[in-house]
Amino acid sequence: MAKNCLIGQSGGPTAVINASLKGVIEAAKKSKKIDKIFGMRYGIQGALDGNILDLTNKSSKELKLLRYTPSSVLGTSRYKIVDYNENEEDYVNLFNLIDKLDISYFFYIGGNDSMDTVDKLNKYAEENGIEINIMGIPKTVDNDLVEIDHCPGYGSASKYIATSVMEIARDSRVYDIKNVHIVEVMGRASGWLAAASMLASNDKLKAPDYIYVSEVDFSVNQFIKDVEKKMNEQKSVVVVVSEGIKDEHGNYISADKSTTHDHFGHKKMGGAAPVLAPFIKGNLCDRVKAIRLDVMQRAAAHCVSEVDAEEAYTLGKKATKAALAGKTGLMVGFKRVSNDPYKIEYIEVPVEKIANKVKSLPKKWINKNENQIKKGFRDYVLPLIQGKVDISYKDGLPEYGELDCLNKDFLVKNI
Amino acid sequence: MAKNCLIGQSGGPTAVINASLKGVIEAAKKSKKIDKIFGMRYGIQGALDGNILDLTNKSSKELKLLRYTPSSVLGTSRYKIVDYNENEEDYVNLFNLIDKLDISYFFYIGGNDSMDTVDKLNKYAEENGIEINIMGIPKTVDNDLVEIDHCPGYGSASKYIATSVMEIARDSRVYDIKNVHIVEVMGRASGWLAAASMLASNDKLKAPDYIYVSEVDFSVNQFIKDVEKKMNEQKSVVVVVSEGIKDEHGNYISADKSTTHDHFGHKKMGGAAPVLAPFIKGNLCDRVKAIRLDVMQRAAAHCVSEVDAEEAYTLGKKATKAALAGKTGLMVGFKRVSNDPYKIEYIEVPVEKIANKVKSLPKKWINKNENQIKKGFRDYVLPLIQGKVDISYKDGLPEYGELDCLNKDFLVKNI
Repeated sequence: MAKNCLIGQSGGPTAVINASLKGVIEAAKKSKKIDKIFGMRYGIQGALDGNILDLTNKSSKELKLLRYTPSSVLGTSRYKIVDYNENEEDYVNLFNLIDKLDISYFFYIGGNDSMDTVDKLNKYAEENGIEINIMGIPKTVDNDLVEIDHCPGYGSASKYIATSVMEIARDSRVYDIKNVHIVEVMGRASGWLAAASMLASNDKLKAPDYIYVSEVDFSVNQFIKDVEKKMNEQKSVVVVVSEGIKDEHGNYISADKSTTHDHFGHKKMGGAAPVLAPFIKGNLCDRVKAIRLDVMQRAAAHCVSEVDAEEAYTLGKKATKAALAGKTGLMVGFKRVSNDPYKIEYIEVPVEKIANKVKSLPKKWINKNENQIKKGFRDYVLPLIQGKVDISYKDGLPEYGELDCLNKDFLVKNI
Repeated sequence: MAKNCLIGQSGGPTAVINASLKGVIEAAKKSKKIDKIFGMRYGIQGALDGNILDLTNKSSKELKLLRYTPSSVLGTSRYKIVDYNENEEDYVNLFNLIDKLDISYFFYIGGNDSMDTVDKLNKYAEENGIEINIMGIPKTVDNDLVEIDHCPGYGSASKYIATSVMEIARDSRVYDIKNVHIVEVMGRASGWLAAASMLASNDKLKAPDYIYVSEVDFSVNQFIKDVEKKMNEQKSVVVVVSEGIKDEHGNYISADKSTTHDHFGHKKMGGAAPVLAPFIKGNLCDRVKAIRLDVMQRAAAHCVSEVDAEEAYTLGKKATKAALAGKTGLMVGFKRVSNDPYKIEYIEVPVEKIANKVKSLPKKWINKNENQIKKGFRDYVLPLIQGKVDISYKDGLPEYGELDCLNKDFLVKNI
């Protein structure tokens, strides 16, 4: 007798997290082992609150649009489930729900925190003799999951960042005056996204001039010296920084105390670039811009990488197939076989190896002065931003999907 | 005997200002009346400094790329030429240069300040019996030139803003918590760009919830009330503001005194959104984002509107033909014949009618509560963001042009 499946999205969104969702839904629809397809509204937290959607009869047109739809259409959460030896309540509630909905296949799309949830749920099920197949599907623009070559979402964010830095660098050069543009990108713990900005450099225009990643102790004084040096050679200096850069004592640059409150006592908006800009402005030059690529870098599906979208989609399908084959407690992913031609192999990794761990940008790709990324990194990242996408446009704008099931009529009642 | 022509770019760049340049160069190449094609490096200021480029033999491949290359590839300036009755020096120097270079056709691509320059140069030439044809070509993302239906550059910036707001709005809804996103767009004197964000709304997602334009007195208290009201209906509130919003006394919101200096005595970075965010954060909700679309909105050629690119290119050609026909002191532009189907007619307007004037967003398109744009505006702006572009991509990134003449070898020597 066919059973049901349950899918959730977790953590921060990416431009391709819905492509993975599409992969799961399509593979589940194809399988005779699966009857109903349920979705968690707002991740595990929503599931615990009983917010379950029935995705079984979603329209195929909306499903098609999901491939290039940004954000997490199911909704997401950052809820961390506690160890069941500490408190069993969430587990009891969740597996009650799973039992009532007759769920045999459970999919969670997320990063390292989410894989911790997958790991805990899987171990609890095993210890308690609950028959269920629980699979993790990776996503994170931060690219910081261990055990896999790269993370879905990273390629598209990298493509957006490189494109934007190319455009910012060209804009910066139009006036015959000295200027500095400081571009801040995501990456609280790792510098993968900042590093990807190196792709903006080509034989026509070298930019960014400096890249400071989270993995390196950041010195404001050295930063000023670096900028000053470059400014002796050229009028425009373009700098990219990770949001997570810290000083030698481990304090975030963005948390500079002098900027946390204004005269109203208002807590001010954070950001490393806005903290750094005043050190240049008026001292080295008058035209300084602090630019934050903000949520656009993870949401800019109009700039998606086709390689990234295809891989994210395929991982959704692979995870479903693995679960249907009786596998559990694994995350699907890939290892790289070659850079040129770019080739990957799909793999499965026990989630316990991934949960809560962070993969930093390797030192081998950071230059000696710790202010630029070495060429070798280009071979790694370049294949991830390739491919021409075929986004649907309507009235001059991208046509993004929306699960029609988000309508209240699709909420599962009387669970 | 064939004469030469001189082209300059002026004011802020747009995504299509180089399309107009391409139009002039191509039309000039085709004409037997024009021999050499010269460019001003950094606008009128560069010309006065003798920085002249010879564009006659630029590679056709680079010329082709210019259509979708952001920034002003010749370089630009904001130099305002004074009245010649006040000080004739610039005029004497410039027309000396024009004489030496044997220039008969002069093209200046710019906004209302630049058209003032065109007007002054034209009147000086007429009064002094100098034979020259001086034509203005409009550009400005601000869309604030009078006498013409819209300005080249505005459509592409509008498309980028609407696309980004669509993506930001989707990103804002993923968590099950209350949040406010304040998106700041360009427009110091006018709200055309903020108004264009209305295009992000469709039948799947209504956003932005509020749009505050420069034309309206901005009240922080009313803004807080508006946000509070909307937050009672929905979790995510998305607001778009013009950078130039002012309070009832005419003071820029972005210039709020409490935020001009930090504890180091550093002058802080401006912005209306970062000033507004703290009024919401911690009061109405904890998750507040101040997002500035910064220079990306005028430089994002990867998101260019084909209608805009084609019109900008055509204006370059039209201006050249007009000059060759003996016209002078005019700016080319268009008037709208119909919205649906979209149809324009190319026109020529005396620059003196345009110089220094600002076209505001008409009140008829602002709602009664002064916090949203009326549907009628959609008919105006929608045609301007249409068309599928065919940008050249290389290694997963847009291939932008660069005038090879920017090499020092192309600088005209011994003028």
